[in-house]
Amino acid sequence: MANFDLMRRLATDEGGKIILLVMDGLGGLPMTPGGKTELEAAHTPNMDRIAREGSLGLTIPVARGVAPGSGPAHLALFGYDPLVYDIGRGVLEAIGIGLEVGDGDVAIRGNFCTIDATGRITDRRAGRIPTEEGEKRVALLKDIQLDGIQVDISAGEGYRFAMVLRGDGLSDQVEDTDPQATGVEPLPARASSPEGQRTADLANQWLAQAKERLKGHEPANMVTLRGFATDPRLPKYSDVYKLNAACVAVYPMYKGVSRLVGMNIIETDMHFSVQDEFNKVAEIWKDYDFVFCHVKYTDSRGEDGNFEAKAKVIEEVDQALPTLLNLNPDVLIITGDHSTPAKYKAHSWHPVPTLLYAPETHMPDWAEAYGERECLRGALGQFPAPDLMPLALAHARRLVKYGA
Amino acid sequence: MANFDLMRRLATDEGGKIILLVMDGLGGLPMTPGGKTELEAAHTPNMDRIAREGSLGLTIPVARGVAPGSGPAHLALFGYDPLVYDIGRGVLEAIGIGLEVGDGDVAIRGNFCTIDATGRITDRRAGRIPTEEGEKRVALLKDIQLDGIQVDISAGEGYRFAMVLRGDGLSDQVEDTDPQATGVEPLPARASSPEGQRTADLANQWLAQAKERLKGHEPANMVTLRGFATDPRLPKYSDVYKLNAACVAVYPMYKGVSRLVGMNIIETDMHFSVQDEFNKVAEIWKDYDFVFCHVKYTDSRGEDGNFEAKAKVIEEVDQALPTLLNLNPDVLIITGDHSTPAKYKAHSWHPVPTLLYAPETHMPDWAEAYGERECLRGALGQFPAPDLMPLALAHARRLVKYGA
Repeated sequence: MANFDLMRRLATDEGGKIILLVMDGLGGLPMTPGGKTELEAAHTPNMDRIAREGSLGLTIPVARGVAPGSGPAHLALFGYDPLVYDIGRGVLEAIGIGLEVGDGDVAIRGNFCTIDATGRITDRRAGRIPTEEGEKRVALLKDIQLDGIQVDISAGEGYRFAMVLRGDGLSDQVEDTDPQATGVEPLPARASSPEGQRTADLANQWLAQAKERLKGHEPANMVTLRGFATDPRLPKYSDVYKLNAACVAVYPMYKGVSRLVGMNIIETDMHFSVQDEFNKVAEIWKDYDFVFCHVKYTDSRGEDGNFEAKAKVIEEVDQALPTLLNLNPDVLIITGDHSTPAKYKAHSWHPVPTLLYAPETHMPDWAEAYGERECLRGALGQFPAPDLMPLALAHARRLVKYGA
Repeated sequence: MANFDLMRRLATDEGGKIILLVMDGLGGLPMTPGGKTELEAAHTPNMDRIAREGSLGLTIPVARGVAPGSGPAHLALFGYDPLVYDIGRGVLEAIGIGLEVGDGDVAIRGNFCTIDATGRITDRRAGRIPTEEGEKRVALLKDIQLDGIQVDISAGEGYRFAMVLRGDGLSDQVEDTDPQATGVEPLPARASSPEGQRTADLANQWLAQAKERLKGHEPANMVTLRGFATDPRLPKYSDVYKLNAACVAVYPMYKGVSRLVGMNIIETDMHFSVQDEFNKVAEIWKDYDFVFCHVKYTDSRGEDGNFEAKAKVIEEVDQALPTLLNLNPDVLIITGDHSTPAKYKAHSWHPVPTLLYAPETHMPDWAEAYGERECLRGALGQFPAPDLMPLALAHARRLVKYGA
């Protein structure tokens, strides 16, 4: 598994340039025994060509049998063992809806809930209000003032929101206020250690004002707060890998995780096509050693259970691929963060197809196209996802020899 | 490697049902270069069919190059890293001959030996007396009384026996009494820490009475005691995996290890055929989430060096297999605990063929039959045996996603 002390010691700030192209949830399964997976079924002449030339393999994101969420799965791809490096739930939720979480900030997940006249919770999810109803409530809460503290709040999906407290002396040592039951009042924020006391007090002041402002706005007339968390202070790409790295992604979550590892976040538009994203990579290419480019919709179509639509997204990536190939990256990796088989309609634990194309340095193997079964015949074998970054650096000739 | 904290966190008590079928010592070698292994040579149409559909691979029981005993090999299959979880020799010996070892009990291995008129050992193994001679001596020792302590004793093979002390305040902190040399007296039992003093005193009282009773019963006229050990208190299947698990095995050793991990032990008969065992699995199937079924004679015939007889046992398993397939388990795993190549006539370190059949969730691969070489083309790769349980749970959809 990747070892940051080792990487710090071996990585140099010279060498080749790397593109890490991630198709979210790429790995798949046949819909019927003997059939093809999504990647095997998709018509992908460009990927097949570089698969024939390059090295294939499969990554294990967290551990055998473990299906990861998007946060841990991306951490793993970025080189961070997700069982060691943990992004708190509040931070994941906040970055997922586009709130920045800086050093010393505290991020919190919030749920709207329904309380009755006596203050007791009757519905922990406020009747599962639609997102636009959540957004209206968040607007009511936006300008709640706390002494010396900046509060940023943003609506999530449905009854969910996230907020970030910014200021001095904040702490994540605060317990959830969600009692995990109905028929009782929301809990006050309580410190789980003395250093959390001030943050708990601030949260209670905020909750009192929120309750006032939400009065009469049934069914979402109160909130609970959960998952108080701070910046996980991950080692940064510039430090451990000596890489000047950029992220081209459309969804806030992936931008957020990339920011946490020290990548520069390139401005994109929610309506970018795959080709638009690749054009953006081309535009910034001269300025970076490493570009992470994220394609979301393979995962979305997998979650939908739509095999053909997922294969189509893969074909869209293949058609746009010449834009990346024309940049002549020293290393081009095409992989997923986890598997999302359409048959399974969810993230799964299956090892993830991985293609490493580095014409000057990759090892030949038996693979003749890009697909799960071909990856089983690949030079890279099956390996923990956090080992992918050392492999990328090595193939870009950015790691010096270990020992004499 | 399997991580119990992670499993505790991710495992749910809902999901599919699992059969773990273990052919002891399954892995083999060709008798001559270019030949087939026992599993490759056996005619196994049922296993070959589900191998074509399912996922194959090879497990590494302890570490590359290390041939395991049956205890550690089964611990590994059950998900316990045998380098971390150790069953003391006294406990292994006791459960191997059918003595139960409960919480607080102390299990001890015993050897009959020969002493001369001056009390000095002349043969540490009592002339390797046959088992029936050992049984006669054990009968003489059965009713030795110790104050407030129950002593269960049972003969093993040849000059070996095991005993279990049951009562309050016992400890495994007692040194062996075998001096590992002849020409000297057996050592007294000595405590290796203050908490072992009482157990050492009890052992010495027992040894004094045993010496009296064995007087004149040359060549087995004395005993030595070794491997004082307590219940290893392994995490239990119900706790870490949320499984209601049963064991269908014929030999005491496998029942014993299964009991230590919290499986229910199904009553069987020493004369059960493979078909009898599978019928028993079918009989109890509705009551359990997980059934471990153990077939002994692949290992025995491997130890005998009888290639054809070992292949025949594998064929017997294949012929009975429809009984298990008809139960429609969500996951059926067919593997061994270690390799016992007939050519080698002993346990070996070679990776162990593993077949995972889970029609709704397994990954396709290149394998077209069940055999060592086909397993090398399998989707599971080569992996540590303790990872098999997380894979089984995942394929049965019994693990939730890790992180968001």
